[in-house]
Amino acid sequence: MKAWQFERAGTPLELRDLPEPRPAADEVLIEIKAAGLCHTDVGILHDPQWSERIGPFPLTLGHELAGVIIEVGPDVEGFAVGDRVGVFPAGRTRPGLGRDGGYSFRCTALPEDLVRVPAEVGFEQAALGTDAGRAAYRALVRRGGVTSGDKVGIIGFGGLGQMAARIAVVLGATVFVAEKKKSLWSAATEIGAQAVSGDITDFADEKLDLVVDFAGFGTTTAAAIEAVREFGTVVQVGMGKLSAEISTGSLIFKQVTLIGSRSGSVEDIAAVYELFAAGELNPLISPITFEDIPAALDRLHRGEAEGRLVAVYE
Amino acid sequence: MKAWQFERAGTPLELRDLPEPRPAADEVLIEIKAAGLCHTDVGILHDPQWSERIGPFPLTLGHELAGVIIEVGPDVEGFAVGDRVGVFPAGRTRPGLGRDGGYSFRCTALPEDLVRVPAEVGFEQAALGTDAGRAAYRALVRRGGVTSGDKVGIIGFGGLGQMAARIAVVLGATVFVAEKKKSLWSAATEIGAQAVSGDITDFADEKLDLVVDFAGFGTTTAAAIEAVREFGTVVQVGMGKLSAEISTGSLIFKQVTLIGSRSGSVEDIAAVYELFAAGELNPLISPITFEDIPAALDRLHRGEAEGRLVAVYE
Repeated sequence: MKAWQFERAGTPLELRDLPEPRPAADEVLIEIKAAGLCHTDVGILHDPQWSERIGPFPLTLGHELAGVIIEVGPDVEGFAVGDRVGVFPAGRTRPGLGRDGGYSFRCTALPEDLVRVPAEVGFEQAALGTDAGRAAYRALVRRGGVTSGDKVGIIGFGGLGQMAARIAVVLGATVFVAEKKKSLWSAATEIGAQAVSGDITDFADEKLDLVVDFAGFGTTTAAAIEAVREFGTVVQVGMGKLSAEISTGSLIFKQVTLIGSRSGSVEDIAAVYELFAAGELNPLISPITFEDIPAALDRLHRGEAEGRLVAVYE
Repeated sequence: MKAWQFERAGTPLELRDLPEPRPAADEVLIEIKAAGLCHTDVGILHDPQWSERIGPFPLTLGHELAGVIIEVGPDVEGFAVGDRVGVFPAGRTRPGLGRDGGYSFRCTALPEDLVRVPAEVGFEQAALGTDAGRAAYRALVRRGGVTSGDKVGIIGFGGLGQMAARIAVVLGATVFVAEKKKSLWSAATEIGAQAVSGDITDFADEKLDLVVDFAGFGTTTAAAIEAVREFGTVVQVGMGKLSAEISTGSLIFKQVTLIGSRSGSVEDIAAVYELFAAGELNPLISPITFEDIPAALDRLHRGEAEGRLVAVYE
């Protein structure tokens, strides 16, 4: 079984031939159908700070995956061979982070981290629902508390931002997108954004109730605090940089709430799958092949990817 | 009527003789009994950025005051001559900020901003309840959501910090105080703090649920985010500096919530008066005379004040 394996930061992924994994008594074995490429992978490949949090190595990367159960351990209840599932990457299974993941063709998982994929939902969507979709939903809904009628600012129209912007539109919010790449502006308007600009502070007069920063370049956090209304909320998701110089004066005078968001739950993934199944959410996906994974991660690193890159194995 | 008046930033208060103010039909006239000295006054005196938000000038400063109603306009309902009251400074009355305030002997006020002072509560306490007490209560209870059993960090044991620390103890929290001045450490222990240190990060192992930063030197905001537990809350009140370099990495990984707090309501003041009346809250007060106000503001500016400075007129 071919697999793209990570050894240590600063070195490229290596193509290896591994024995097929065997599920433990309380695990299932999944035939992987789709695996999304994530900025976290870029972090792991290039920055030793990221790989401190994962391992052991060598490790097959790919933490955003969906597939079909092809074997069930004797202690597993509630799942059967043939079930279509996505895997919650932040639980105990940790595919591509704590055990071999999606940049290969089979992986093991614990039932507690499985989410059933509705019949209407393709594997590409199911894969990115487990991570980009979940993180977007969590930031916007669970942490940001978006409600119908809210004015919402979305900073960064990448993998997560495009999904959050669309979810906000579906939930009845008026959405303002800040995205540096002008090539993405028409896509933002197409999913229902009210307006698009390069800088969130251009929407300061809109009295934004909520701003979610999926870019995270420090300057974007500071700009979000300036752009949001009095008693507004800023949710920080993006980690383009790990620090920010913010105006505590604005934070206090406007009584802003700044919230860090990550992780999530299988329930968040299920909520995203429902939106997919209803046809409400159609994120821009760029399908690639297994062989193209390292080159595609390079494109992601250089900021050349538009929409979510998903490796599809069919 | 003597009054200490402010003309512009960078110049000292001037002692003037003013005509006694007359209440409008919808106002009361108050004989001022006590007026607290606040860091905001120091800001107004020395930094033009502060005085942009107040005026017109010349203006009698003193926004933290309590006294006795000595005249009632014909349209006023619910208050009578002889009532002991504190004045909410952040409403429409704005004593010492938008109209002549407490560094004199009489002032006018709108009934909506008045809070009755219980018989058991002295005017010094009533004065600082309107501002330092209210701001401390609001940050800790309304914005920070403190509950019994919480572990709470308080940064800065000055006028607001000492009240917040004591209120937290009274509400059943375990309190950890960070204060640079060692001379204040014994006072922190006396009001029931579990431990005192110079740096809030010394309490990082305590898994603090809530940290309230009354110092606000940027570094203290950053330290509060490091010290608080996963899913913990940091409330920012102090504005020693108007910006902070924070770790968005820590904010996101620990999913911290950072909240700006200011202002408040007459209800917050009433809640503080109840704590005073119950004998639960006895902040350190340094009484001074009317004549000593400018020199005492200098002491506050130099960081030499311990406890809240209150001018007492009896």
